[in-house]
Amino acid sequence: MRWIDELAECSEHPVELTRRYLTPEHAQAAELIMERMREAGMDTWLDAVGNVIGRFPGRRPEARRLILGSHLDTVRNAGKYDGALGVLLPIACLKALDERGERLEYPVDVIAFGDEEGLRFQATLIGSRAVAGNFDPELLTAVDGDGVRLREALREFGLDPEAVAEAEYHRDDVAGYVEVHIEQGPVLEAEDRPVGVVTSIAGATRMRVEVMGRAGHAGTVPMNLRYDALAAASEAVIAVERICSDIPGAVGTVGVLRTMPGAVNVIPGVVEFSVDVRAGSDGVRRRVLRRIGEAFAAIEERRGVLFDSVITHETRAAQCSPWLMHCLGRAIEAEGLDVRELPSGAGHDAMAMAHLTAVGMLFVRCKEGISHHPAESMTEADAEVAAQVLLRFLEEFDPGEWDSDDRAEVPPDDDPGMGDGA
Amino acid sequence: MRWIDELAECSEHPVELTRRYLTPEHAQAAELIMERMREAGMDTWLDAVGNVIGRFPGRRPEARRLILGSHLDTVRNAGKYDGALGVLLPIACLKALDERGERLEYPVDVIAFGDEEGLRFQATLIGSRAVAGNFDPELLTAVDGDGVRLREALREFGLDPEAVAEAEYHRDDVAGYVEVHIEQGPVLEAEDRPVGVVTSIAGATRMRVEVMGRAGHAGTVPMNLRYDALAAASEAVIAVERICSDIPGAVGTVGVLRTMPGAVNVIPGVVEFSVDVRAGSDGVRRRVLRRIGEAFAAIEERRGVLFDSVITHETRAAQCSPWLMHCLGRAIEAEGLDVRELPSGAGHDAMAMAHLTAVGMLFVRCKEGISHHPAESMTEADAEVAAQVLLRFLEEFDPGEWDSDDRAEVPPDDDPGMGDGA
Repeated sequence: MRWIDELAECSEHPVELTRRYLTPEHAQAAELIMERMREAGMDTWLDAVGNVIGRFPGRRPEARRLILGSHLDTVRNAGKYDGALGVLLPIACLKALDERGERLEYPVDVIAFGDEEGLRFQATLIGSRAVAGNFDPELLTAVDGDGVRLREALREFGLDPEAVAEAEYHRDDVAGYVEVHIEQGPVLEAEDRPVGVVTSIAGATRMRVEVMGRAGHAGTVPMNLRYDALAAASEAVIAVERICSDIPGAVGTVGVLRTMPGAVNVIPGVVEFSVDVRAGSDGVRRRVLRRIGEAFAAIEERRGVLFDSVITHETRAAQCSPWLMHCLGRAIEAEGLDVRELPSGAGHDAMAMAHLTAVGMLFVRCKEGISHHPAESMTEADAEVAAQVLLRFLEEFDPGEWDSDDRAEVPPDDDPGMGDGA
Repeated sequence: MRWIDELAECSEHPVELTRRYLTPEHAQAAELIMERMREAGMDTWLDAVGNVIGRFPGRRPEARRLILGSHLDTVRNAGKYDGALGVLLPIACLKALDERGERLEYPVDVIAFGDEEGLRFQATLIGSRAVAGNFDPELLTAVDGDGVRLREALREFGLDPEAVAEAEYHRDDVAGYVEVHIEQGPVLEAEDRPVGVVTSIAGATRMRVEVMGRAGHAGTVPMNLRYDALAAASEAVIAVERICSDIPGAVGTVGVLRTMPGAVNVIPGVVEFSVDVRAGSDGVRRRVLRRIGEAFAAIEERRGVLFDSVITHETRAAQCSPWLMHCLGRAIEAEGLDVRELPSGAGHDAMAMAHLTAVGMLFVRCKEGISHHPAESMTEADAEVAAQVLLRFLEEFDPGEWDSDDRAEVPPDDDPGMGDGA
């Protein structure tokens, strides 16, 4: 927890925590992480896209290596646990082993990915995509808010943009990827559990919906002659909520809604709103979208308005490896806790890593489900539980059990970016 | 109709029609109107607040005079019939009488009010309030968008701001006020009627409502742990619509709705929306507001969110005089048409004039209910019907039938302004 506070000092802003990819503050954070890694007995370096890598040698160097990690970048005005926990907790566990003079059978790499949130270049998961061999060279031309291209930013950071492919791991060398992360949701807290095992990282569909009714004078158009775009949109908002409540495993949100012309005394003629649907299973997500489409059509029909929906973003779900879920669950039970499996509604580096290898995630309870906000918080006691679980997992993990079917189970999506990185 | 096109040339903007109170374009329009009045055999002058007055002498000069009129100012990017019709149609009728060498028993004043919409000084009905003796001298300090006070604007227009009170008519001299106006709504068109008789000018209540729920991540907060302010507000929007549909004589509109923080992937924590309720009867309006309050409380209770409602504007309804309604109805029947009585949801100069005398209004069908928009339109045939009805009304009107109870029937509101002037 002290390390997390220390890391949060590396910020572009004196009061708010903001740490974007390839900034001087990123370099400062990387330096700090490498120091912690070295103190834990690891060799460290920056890879070709600026990910920090720490290598903890195993007793059998030829064994497949396990990758642990999460990201170093943050959103704007962020909380300090998102990403940081999944980088520092593994280092702390390995340090504990190192201090006892112990080594694991297999080698472990801890990776602190440089970009997951996508704040700087509007492209998420750059670090983990490069490691997973799923980095599109087109991305090098992406520009940040100041017009700086990713290519130039890499060079300025002391890296060679032509060498990005070197960041890729060879899949035969890797046994799996395990990420520890705060839940960013309220489920564990509501059930009074410190940790949970992630089943899948939700796929998402985002739509922009325009409802076209007819504007009119709020005083002169009787109720029965109205084509009120907002009343129709309101039914749509409630339909999204009802459908996602009815279908287990799905969430649906209307986060933005705008009325036009937007005057107190004018019946809205046009309303625009967003829909964000997520589900751990792509089949569930498709079922939700079908039901939403039917509900919108019924509202159109009944009210004589028009709905125009455009999909603006779509990613498939990434399944966690049943084998790694089982190993994490065993470690939790060994700590005397029940195993709670739950999906992740937010995106994570594990989504990109699923392109390379089997992935598993351990969620840690956070306060009131708040994340991407300075009020993001978790307890020291929960960090301790998570550390014990991870340590036990590491001690009992056998890369020889690796099941090659696990990785191919669900074909990873070509574009694993979540847009908002979470 | 040609006069209306001609009048629409007097605009501050070369393409869009905008004509604010006490601008050079107002002066130009006033000049044009006075010329038309003189051609119709009327004496003309500007009163103390810049209203154009045309006096058509009667055979019995001592009889109470009838006032006809409407307003010369417009909203921004207006239609050309709102106000203009009620000024020019009476002049056309009186001109027809004059050309036949006829006079009415009683004198008629046609008034083209300088300000009804309130666009320039954010205070509506300035012209008719002055005539009705309900002008608050405080208003002289109101400023326009350029920081010019009403006092200075009057002076610049060649008027004496200290003499505003002189615009007031003496109530014993007046038999009534009759205004012809486009409906600005779709009722007459839907029922295929050229004209209708107004029963009352609706009272209005406007509220600003804030719904406080809890913001959260669109992906990580399960449906059953949400306090979605937008879902709650959506139920409120539908409740307003349902209640106003259930209670005859009321309309209710949510014209503006804003979600906060307003991001695609964040559950809205706060939603702000407007409510505009109008009814021809104050009792009906109060009943609607009570039911809306109950509905909001039920949503609060069920969803665990908070509603905070503030009334931002309130005006009482102005009843039209049953006597004038009867006279207008008789004239319509004499033209072979059924009488359709309907309330006015929009505000009119008649609201202010109800402070002085009995008021009546004749509505004329307009295209698709559109008003305050360049697409505002009506037909020449309907203008002809309205002219025939008004002419017949004038010929049969007897100011001796005046019933002094009519005026006092409903105490006029101290602030008859509708905020938006319509």
